[in-house]
Amino acid sequence: MKKRTLLMIPGPIEFEPEVLAAMGAPTTGHLAPSFIEAFGQALERMRQVFLCAQGQPFVLAGSGTLAMDMAGANLVQPGDRALVVNTGYFSDRFAAILERYGALVTQVTAPLGGRPGLDEIERALAGGDFKLVTVTHVDTSTGVRADVKGVAGLARRYEVLSVVDGVCSVAAEELRMDEWEVDLALTASQKAVGVPPGLALLMAGARAMEAFRNRRMPVGNYYADWSNWLPVMQAYEARKPAYFGTPAVNLIFALNVSLGQILAEGMPARFNRHAVLGKACQAGIAALGLGQVPLQPEYTANTLTAPRYPAGINGVEFLAKANQVGVTLAGGLYPSIRTEYFRIGHMGAVNLNDILATVGAVESALRDCGYACTPGSGVGAVMASYLG
Amino acid sequence: MKKRTLLMIPGPIEFEPEVLAAMGAPTTGHLAPSFIEAFGQALERMRQVFLCAQGQPFVLAGSGTLAMDMAGANLVQPGDRALVVNTGYFSDRFAAILERYGALVTQVTAPLGGRPGLDEIERALAGGDFKLVTVTHVDTSTGVRADVKGVAGLARRYEVLSVVDGVCSVAAEELRMDEWEVDLALTASQKAVGVPPGLALLMAGARAMEAFRNRRMPVGNYYADWSNWLPVMQAYEARKPAYFGTPAVNLIFALNVSLGQILAEGMPARFNRHAVLGKACQAGIAALGLGQVPLQPEYTANTLTAPRYPAGINGVEFLAKANQVGVTLAGGLYPSIRTEYFRIGHMGAVNLNDILATVGAVESALRDCGYACTPGSGVGAVMASYLG
Repeated sequence: MKKRTLLMIPGPIEFEPEVLAAMGAPTTGHLAPSFIEAFGQALERMRQVFLCAQGQPFVLAGSGTLAMDMAGANLVQPGDRALVVNTGYFSDRFAAILERYGALVTQVTAPLGGRPGLDEIERALAGGDFKLVTVTHVDTSTGVRADVKGVAGLARRYEVLSVVDGVCSVAAEELRMDEWEVDLALTASQKAVGVPPGLALLMAGARAMEAFRNRRMPVGNYYADWSNWLPVMQAYEARKPAYFGTPAVNLIFALNVSLGQILAEGMPARFNRHAVLGKACQAGIAALGLGQVPLQPEYTANTLTAPRYPAGINGVEFLAKANQVGVTLAGGLYPSIRTEYFRIGHMGAVNLNDILATVGAVESALRDCGYACTPGSGVGAVMASYLG
Repeated sequence: MKKRTLLMIPGPIEFEPEVLAAMGAPTTGHLAPSFIEAFGQALERMRQVFLCAQGQPFVLAGSGTLAMDMAGANLVQPGDRALVVNTGYFSDRFAAILERYGALVTQVTAPLGGRPGLDEIERALAGGDFKLVTVTHVDTSTGVRADVKGVAGLARRYEVLSVVDGVCSVAAEELRMDEWEVDLALTASQKAVGVPPGLALLMAGARAMEAFRNRRMPVGNYYADWSNWLPVMQAYEARKPAYFGTPAVNLIFALNVSLGQILAEGMPARFNRHAVLGKACQAGIAALGLGQVPLQPEYTANTLTAPRYPAGINGVEFLAKANQVGVTLAGGLYPSIRTEYFRIGHMGAVNLNDILATVGAVESALRDCGYACTPGSGVGAVMASYLG
């Protein structure tokens, strides 16, 4: 019997064998021709994945929070006004980061599981002289998907930079930086990009780079300062390496492998697969009688399902039972409801097998915890949704 | 014929098969019991490697520069005075980092390849009200080793925090934080710690943590702020995980494997092996008639040799020839003499085989570049030094 469980949390996820092989391959020097080519190609491929033909990619050793920190540190000067479209824990974090670098932050909020309306966001934009607006594409804590296209369109109309936290969306949820006029998007390797944790990934559009070049004050954060990294990224892309800090060689080889796989699938197909599988998972959960944190299907993420426990279910016990039948799920993260819900990540190389296994494990664990549901009703609903 | 070359640069280095296996193993969740145990154990083992029984370890996804940045950001408040003992490129960098966070930096310098004397450092300490002094244990650009024990002793006498950039020394050069009263030391994974690049490693002693707790102003850098990471490090060590950013799971598993190997060898034996092999390498280089960047053998690093090219040798051609015979060496890094020297890294799992192969490749490449040296004189001197 297979011992390894299926990792269905919102990152790290299940990684492809070719990606793991690159992780475990003997490390080359950071000036080795094979590494220079892989890094240069990965930077080029990032533009295709972010759908940002002229963007400036940054790849740094770090977590997704470093990518957020890099955006805040390089764009904000003390006294700048920033608007945060808040849909959960990671929006709170972006506000904290912007404030750390001296921004005056205004937030538009919504009830838990909801998202602020575009009308409300527009009123805020109209009422203040903002430099930038941040929006969490998918908040990993709530499973709420923001209307990035709508927010970016408003930002452009009010001549405000749009900054997208795409940690739980890039390479899975539809995100078209050029077409939607998004000025900056960022993510982390261990999400839908499909690489073990350790890389912060960021794509800055022309306006974001212009705002950076027009700074009058030095960037508050040394490690994340684009002044240090921009020459390095440009050099590797020109296949003539430069040094600032030692690049995370194995992770970058793995990144290039995964980006190649992503582009081989094609972005529209990839967006669609995540939409189909996300809906199937959520149909399965609904058929078991469970509510979800997002209040409306239209803004429920394709990458993540956040089911609420039925009354009387102990989360710790439930997660342990699911793990026993072979599927690792994540507990709640949003502080005020942490014990009331769990999270299923379905992104990256996820397929129908994984969704069925996961909803099966949820059925099984619910039953083991004493919740009455008809065996097969969850997985049946997955198939019905999938087959349409 | 083996295709892979021997990677003898000052990081990344040759990694052990067990470490690479951990890198390439399927990624677990960051709450998986096996990961919690590995992370907790790695934190405990760091104390033994840094010889700092009560220190607070920090492990973050990032490069060595992030570890330096973390030290600067958490210890410095605007207006603090800092003394930098400058022995090369990375000392310059530490000064830049400290200034970024508002420190007023004084530097004691030395001619290229030298190091400031303890008397000079003491005069500087006596003349200013410094909060901290930084010293680069081994400057990767020059191969100069500082007298960390001496500097830390002075720092304690003047009640100044001693901060050691140990990127090219920790787990190879003798460094005894407790015994020498070093307040903070840091490194990166891809050096003598023996793990592919991607982790910033830092050990803060009691006085460094106290200085952090006594801050009146928030840390200038969000990602590197110990306030965010301290609860996480404490929690994993207590085998009860907490979340701030997703830990670099594969790298941390690999770190724990490598730290286990390091401690199995034992720190005194490890320090001694690096001393013996470093001397052997440098004897081989000297026997070929090459000078070295460090001006004195007594402060020439055990982890790194920085030979000067003989007159008329083209560095690009030389490095290519060495690579052709199977050994990857590094070019110069210190700006003013970049093309005049090269660098050999010999740290981590390095053994006599590697040193012989490397000095053999240097002999071979020198001859190919037209430099007259007696075949075997370099490797002969390696053996003579090694066998004593």
